Amino acid sequence: MTGTLEAPVLSTMQDVPLTVTRILVHGALVHGRTAHVTTWTGEGEPRRRSFHDVGARSAQLANALRDELGVEPGQAVATLMWNNAEHLEAYLAVPSMGAVLHTLNLRLPAEQLGWIVNHAADRVIIVDGSVLPLLVPLLPGLTTVKHLVVSGPGDRSVLDGCAARVHDYEELIEGRPRRYAWPETDERQAAVLCYTSGTTGHPKGVAYSHRSIYLHSMQINTVESFGMSASDTLLPVVPMFHANAWGTPHAAFMAGASMLMPDRFLQPAPLAEMIERERPTVAAAVPTVWQGLLAELETAPREVSGLRDVYIGGAACPPSLMKAFEERHGIRVVHAWGMTETSPLGSVAHPPGGLSEEDAWPYRISQGRFPASVEFRLISADGEPVPWDGETPGELEVRGPWIAGAYYGGADGEPFRPEDKFTEDGWLKTGDIGTISPDCYLTLTDRAKDVIKSGGEWISSVELENHLMGHPEVAEAAVVAVPDEKWGERPLATVVLTEGATVGYEGLRAFLAERVARWQLPEHWALVPAVPKTSVGKFDKKVIRKQYADGELDVTTLG
Amino acid sequence: MTGTLEAPVLSTMQDVPLTVTRILVHGALVHGRTAHVTTWTGEGEPRRRSFHDVGARSAQLANALRDELGVEPGQAVATLMWNNAEHLEAYLAVPSMGAVLHTLNLRLPAEQLGWIVNHAADRVIIVDGSVLPLLVPLLPGLTTVKHLVVSGPGDRSVLDGCAARVHDYEELIEGRPRRYAWPETDERQAAVLCYTSGTTGHPKGVAYSHRSIYLHSMQINTVESFGMSASDTLLPVVPMFHANAWGTPHAAFMAGASMLMPDRFLQPAPLAEMIERERPTVAAAVPTVWQGLLAELETAPREVSGLRDVYIGGAACPPSLMKAFEERHGIRVVHAWGMTETSPLGSVAHPPGGLSEEDAWPYRISQGRFPASVEFRLISADGEPVPWDGETPGELEVRGPWIAGAYYGGADGEPFRPEDKFTEDGWLKTGDIGTISPDCYLTLTDRAKDVIKSGGEWISSVELENHLMGHPEVAEAAVVAVPDEKWGERPLATVVLTEGATVGYEGLRAFLAERVARWQLPEHWALVPAVPKTSVGKFDKKVIRKQYADGELDVTTLG
Repeated sequence: MTGTLEAPVLSTMQDVPLTVTRILVHGALVHGRTAHVTTWTGEGEPRRRSFHDVGARSAQLANALRDELGVEPGQAVATLMWNNAEHLEAYLAVPSMGAVLHTLNLRLPAEQLGWIVNHAADRVIIVDGSVLPLLVPLLPGLTTVKHLVVSGPGDRSVLDGCAARVHDYEELIEGRPRRYAWPETDERQAAVLCYTSGTTGHPKGVAYSHRSIYLHSMQINTVESFGMSASDTLLPVVPMFHANAWGTPHAAFMAGASMLMPDRFLQPAPLAEMIERERPTVAAAVPTVWQGLLAELETAPREVSGLRDVYIGGAACPPSLMKAFEERHGIRVVHAWGMTETSPLGSVAHPPGGLSEEDAWPYRISQGRFPASVEFRLISADGEPVPWDGETPGELEVRGPWIAGAYYGGADGEPFRPEDKFTEDGWLKTGDIGTISPDCYLTLTDRAKDVIKSGGEWISSVELENHLMGHPEVAEAAVVAVPDEKWGERPLATVVLTEGATVGYEGLRAFLAERVARWQLPEHWALVPAVPKTSVGKFDKKVIRKQYADGELDVTTLG
Repeated sequence: MTGTLEAPVLSTMQDVPLTVTRILVHGALVHGRTAHVTTWTGEGEPRRRSFHDVGARSAQLANALRDELGVEPGQAVATLMWNNAEHLEAYLAVPSMGAVLHTLNLRLPAEQLGWIVNHAADRVIIVDGSVLPLLVPLLPGLTTVKHLVVSGPGDRSVLDGCAARVHDYEELIEGRPRRYAWPETDERQAAVLCYTSGTTGHPKGVAYSHRSIYLHSMQINTVESFGMSASDTLLPVVPMFHANAWGTPHAAFMAGASMLMPDRFLQPAPLAEMIERERPTVAAAVPTVWQGLLAELETAPREVSGLRDVYIGGAACPPSLMKAFEERHGIRVVHAWGMTETSPLGSVAHPPGGLSEEDAWPYRISQGRFPASVEFRLISADGEPVPWDGETPGELEVRGPWIAGAYYGGADGEPFRPEDKFTEDGWLKTGDIGTISPDCYLTLTDRAKDVIKSGGEWISSVELENHLMGHPEVAEAAVVAVPDEKWGERPLATVVLTEGATVGYEGLRAFLAERVARWQLPEHWALVPAVPKTSVGKFDKKVIRKQYADGELDVTTLG
């Protein structure tokens, strides 16, 4: 009785799909009594709901969507909501019933929002009453939406006369069965759709799968990532319409970590109050929010040391901010890197073990290390892999089971793979330029669109700007690429001088020459009264390049 | 330009397989310089190797297996080894090259080992020199083995004249390329084969897949499980031939946790020494080993408080042992439950957050909670689900992506699914009886084969035994089921009295009647001089049942 092993040998493991359904059922069952979702309500008592109740209400929502609203598997149900318990119920119910959750970014311009709703063919929009004024102007242009489900306070009369049927969330789900015969969904089916607004062209849809969300949730709960457990309470400040709030609500529901949902109360004062009162242990936020919180705590002190870790992404966090939180409030700020296309994790900047606090800092201010599920490489301007020596820059490309390999629905509804975003062998081009150290820590320096590609080498505009702004007579400096016949591109430095400054171009160039390689020195210079900025305060380099192209800048070219 | 979402909607995520190869490449690359594998060598210096070197040597091994030994994808390569760096190299190399690693349990009787090697059609056996004497007697009966690869010290001359070609591990891999073009393997392909020796019939093969090992590794590194990270050093005392050392080496390589491999030095004294010298932070072991270590530390104190957590499985750990380690040595002992068929995780007994030490104990001595990937249910003697009230017992059944759904290779080489191990709807019957509390903590009380099935209800033999052994005049007591016409089965209590005891059957029965329900009281009693035991010291109930059936016991039946 000898078996015969023939290649490829199938295992004897059960074939069980990795689904959002499993996260829903597990969290509601195993952590149903012990874990809670608390939604901040401003003045009144927070709205508190056990995981068990969230699970039961998710089933009620699914029953309502199917029986009352006619939602079928594969159809898109959109949310236009803050971070709250009802949004979480939609998160769990919609994918688990086989439909696709489409999270709408309520900060997008109206025309983009409308385009996205039509592109995704959303059948239903679940909307917070407080953001109805954002939705109303879009309604006449929406071609697929049959139902609006309004949750929470807000004047419903603004919807009078709209073509879609209007429902109240609580009335819609009330009395419906608190169980649902969840189907077993293919793990590769889309679960959540999220659009990323590029700098050019229409927004592009990223369709997360059940599999990618499940794996990403497990990763979030590992120690090398956010390390959440049933002993934690998560405060997701990052919006749930932004790459699934970095996947943290799914991960928390899987781990049985309670959640404190800030709803629309994202200002420093209510954040400080809810942290003191509800004592979350882990938070996820962008640096600007945290900067505001620090200032708030200076003027109105609160006991916030129950917060252990704050994961910061979206932009690098100033080390001074990290140190201030650690020293004054006992809160560890941890850098993480990711993007909508990467689910979004990405790398996390936990330092290697056993280092002194001082030795750990260079690691902590880097973008961190990648987990096993995220393969990475740096590619030079010539398209060649660059060494991981901590010095040679390259564009970061990544690959893995929760990394996008295409965008949803182009002109013909098929997935599409723009060349500037995906390589031929299927990797995602992140558009981020940086270095990787020999011990595999990533440091990002530039966006690819902001580096100057000069003769097959990259010149970092950020590095030139930082050096220039280190000059005592420079108030601001923005460096952009301008076309060059011989080199392809060369740097143009636009500089705002301080009042009474006497330094000239030659002086600035000499100042730079002591700090960067000779071939990186800008030859094109312009003094400007101010650097143009985007709505969120970043340098708007598109405008500078256009001013240059249109001849609107007074440019001096040095020999 | 409106997309059309049609069911089922495929996601836009990359389709990247979850493989052991990914664990190997990631660990060797990202943690290659910072993490190490240290193998204890007894007298001399430990053998220390970076993850980078382990990765490079894994590539050398794969090159040798393919080029020199002719191993092809899907063929089985066996290991007969202790926990050491070379065993880890085989762990990583063999599945990554597309072959199947078959871990042989060096504690099995020779005839079972030989049967297993032939059943798995092992082509190669990699064997520690120190265990060659175990292998030699098998050799004449092995029908498929073409090569023996001997690692480490040991008298090779015992292999003289054997039919297989004999290689030295180090000579075999020396000078071969330190890279290998690892193929991209289907994640559902078998990666590791491990036989479990049931109490009846031949051993049964469990074939772990790349997918199951990858997911299980991620789970191990979550906080709710073992929570390992790059700051940890793992001491796997549980053998690597026993359900992949509970999956800990794969998980550690994935997380960048260093490893301290005890090799064959599993006695209390060397364990205490290596813990003091190498300062592991996490260990995995069975209770008996840890009991021995505690005694050793009493007589020869060592500084072992660097060890944070010890995960104990295989059997319940006496609370006194758990408390002793915590109070005397600052080491937290954590219960975990699993079996070969469950990869083996199972449940882990971390208490809910926020409890006092005293309130946490009942949770800590339970078998713990299940992670999201392990679905569970308790089934009554009637085949019905039982409520999770912490009182009603049922047989534990589990389902999930790292749970076996069949055994490898029956008579015809096909996977087979014995009825007593798998349900019709594909769940694994664990053979364990227990209860689940309303907050989903599992407490196991009996093996299914040891409970008495009386009139559609279960009577716990373990509970009766524990009560009987609480009687001051009872030295030992074993309770077994005996056939009963009316009830199906009824309990027979076999009792060893202390010297000079005066209690009779009626007295014992009255003693029990104060402690268990009336219908659970045994009516059949026998005084015996000793309870028959297995080779590992457990009650051998098979023998007692046979003695009863053969009329060898002097049984008194009470009315």
